[in-house]
Amino acid sequence: MKFETAPPRGMKDLLPREVELRDRAAATILATYRKYGFRRIETPALENLGLLLSSEGGENEKLVFKVLKRGAKLESVATLREDDLADLGLRFDLTVPLARYYAHNRAELPDPFKAIQIGPVWRAERPQKGRFRQFTQCDIDILGVASEVAEIELILATAEALIELGLERPQIRLNDRRLLAAIAAQCGFAGPRQGDVFVTLDKLDRIGRERDPVAALAQLAETIPAVREPAGVLHTIVSTIEAEAGPRYGIAFDPTLVRGMGYYTGPIFEATCEGYGASVAGGGRYDRMIGRLLGEDVPACGFSIGFERVVSILEAKSGLVRPDRDRVALIFERGDGPGEVIAAANRLRSGGRVVSLTLKRKNLARQLDDLARDGFGSYAIFRAGAGAPEVKPLALRTPEAKRADA
Amino acid sequence: MKFETAPPRGMKDLLPREVELRDRAAATILATYRKYGFRRIETPALENLGLLLSSEGGENEKLVFKVLKRGAKLESVATLREDDLADLGLRFDLTVPLARYYAHNRAELPDPFKAIQIGPVWRAERPQKGRFRQFTQCDIDILGVASEVAEIELILATAEALIELGLERPQIRLNDRRLLAAIAAQCGFAGPRQGDVFVTLDKLDRIGRERDPVAALAQLAETIPAVREPAGVLHTIVSTIEAEAGPRYGIAFDPTLVRGMGYYTGPIFEATCEGYGASVAGGGRYDRMIGRLLGEDVPACGFSIGFERVVSILEAKSGLVRPDRDRVALIFERGDGPGEVIAAANRLRSGGRVVSLTLKRKNLARQLDDLARDGFGSYAIFRAGAGAPEVKPLALRTPEAKRADA
Repeated sequence: MKFETAPPRGMKDLLPREVELRDRAAATILATYRKYGFRRIETPALENLGLLLSSEGGENEKLVFKVLKRGAKLESVATLREDDLADLGLRFDLTVPLARYYAHNRAELPDPFKAIQIGPVWRAERPQKGRFRQFTQCDIDILGVASEVAEIELILATAEALIELGLERPQIRLNDRRLLAAIAAQCGFAGPRQGDVFVTLDKLDRIGRERDPVAALAQLAETIPAVREPAGVLHTIVSTIEAEAGPRYGIAFDPTLVRGMGYYTGPIFEATCEGYGASVAGGGRYDRMIGRLLGEDVPACGFSIGFERVVSILEAKSGLVRPDRDRVALIFERGDGPGEVIAAANRLRSGGRVVSLTLKRKNLARQLDDLARDGFGSYAIFRAGAGAPEVKPLALRTPEAKRADA
Repeated sequence: MKFETAPPRGMKDLLPREVELRDRAAATILATYRKYGFRRIETPALENLGLLLSSEGGENEKLVFKVLKRGAKLESVATLREDDLADLGLRFDLTVPLARYYAHNRAELPDPFKAIQIGPVWRAERPQKGRFRQFTQCDIDILGVASEVAEIELILATAEALIELGLERPQIRLNDRRLLAAIAAQCGFAGPRQGDVFVTLDKLDRIGRERDPVAALAQLAETIPAVREPAGVLHTIVSTIEAEAGPRYGIAFDPTLVRGMGYYTGPIFEATCEGYGASVAGGGRYDRMIGRLLGEDVPACGFSIGFERVVSILEAKSGLVRPDRDRVALIFERGDGPGEVIAAANRLRSGGRVVSLTLKRKNLARQLDDLARDGFGSYAIFRAGAGAPEVKPLALRTPEAKRADA
């Protein structure tokens, strides 16, 4: 019997050096978020299908991996209809499970509730370069705060996390679903009023070009009276963030920002970083999602870092593995007594080193090259009865040295 | 519309305090394993169903959550047979995916390969107290090492991780599948030879009572000549571990240890901790699993910590949340300017504190109690124009103080 050993289509095995980069990135993000009072929670990977398929998740609802019913439940199915065959689905984002979590566990949660979630989500998309069917999201959400203080805290924490990761000069773009709705309503005016729409769109374009978000918002509020309140909220967010950001990152009103999900009700925002076109984080206010589950609206707002995109930017920046002097390969031979070898390794470990036992190969020079390429910065050769083995530095040989050796 | 907000049957939402305990436990285990040269890898949660259902996974193969085919693949299905309807499954352990991962990525992995995996697995078991359908496993495995040095390193690292977690005096029990096979073969002798079996079992029982594993193994090797080689291996493991363990933990030969999985080929082992009956970790050698995928046998050996069991032991030991002085609730009122409130919070944060903004409620005394119960060790009340807010210690009021206040 011969098996396909590749992971399932569109999914990915992570090598040790990839996991190490991801773990460092996750630790950096989590440490920043914790400083702002966010706390990590977890929900199961599976949710009831009914919840996932009625969540205003837009296109994502069509991409759910559905789990077959089991045992007697499956035996009683008589048709080949998908909805009869499956009862659970893998989550496609972390927001829908968060709303359910909050509705279910509210009595045990602090008020306001500031959640961090980092974990995999699944979407049965057509696989393409750089897009996978299992990928990690990293979200923060504030539940129970109706004022723009929530948006401001989310934006401050996310911008700081991006800077801590080493991404250059993050730019936040900001809009409000209520502004978009007001513009759409105005566009709905018939015949003679269409001129107004064109004037509005023209103004928006000029506003975009001006790049002074505070002035742009004032102008917009003059043009469409219905947007005075949301424009005021955006104004507060922009001026507060600008005061805290200094030169480290920027924020701008962008009247063309829309975002895909149907559940947003107020401010929406995205972050980009210098040198990368696509956004690295996105979020917004969704004040009516929890109400559909709880029967009582709870103000809610979140910001999600596209973890895979951030990791691929960091991978491109970091380049090769640097050898670590404290990672020691202890090389022993088949005839050496295991007890003595282990004792020698533990002596080296007690000095704070990472020690990995490695059986000597025939070609020691090539073995040392392989170890250096794998990130070992030191090695030691075990010799029975010789006391603590001597630790020597390890580095990749130059091609010249290899040739001279051959 | 009203939704069920509980997580799916047999699955669990994790509250912030639960995640914090789990994160601390995982960090402790990972730090110990890294010192021994193990490196973390990740595989997708989903595997091709064919792999999962032919993995010698025993009972677990019957418990796979199967994922419905999608789109055209599902439309071409004509029957209600499970195997036609599903093409993917959620992994039921971390060993079967590791074997596939190694067979697929071998060229890019170091030799020997020392892997850490920590992550969820899924089993559609009948839910019962303390047993969940999604739970976390934490495994280390050494691939490419045929000698007992692998077993010894796995046992040393796991015992040290359990001690670092604060579990008391771990005890390792050890046996070998080849010993069990030899005993079973001996039991197969008919009529007149049955006496031998009884003598053997009797001796085993006495060996168990003696509790000197080295003497017991020597005795066993005398009784059944076929077990001389595996007995020698176990002897080396026991004496090496005893020398390294000192009084911190113990190891004993246990001829009654069997373990469930069909794929073990040599030494098998379990760990228990003082005061807890069930084992907290289990593992063994499985030298033939990778060969079935790669067409070439690769020696392999692993030890898996039952993460959920360890966490529940730690939960029982740790008791209530202790308030943390560096967690500050900054209380503000609806009328306060967001810019000033945020600036005050960031001033407190720059001193290394975790600061969470909280809107003032009507009953401040009760609000402070709620904050203390949630782990806040300090609070500060924002006052506009008053400079840096004063941070005061926070503690749960005694019932007497509450009554005096009322």
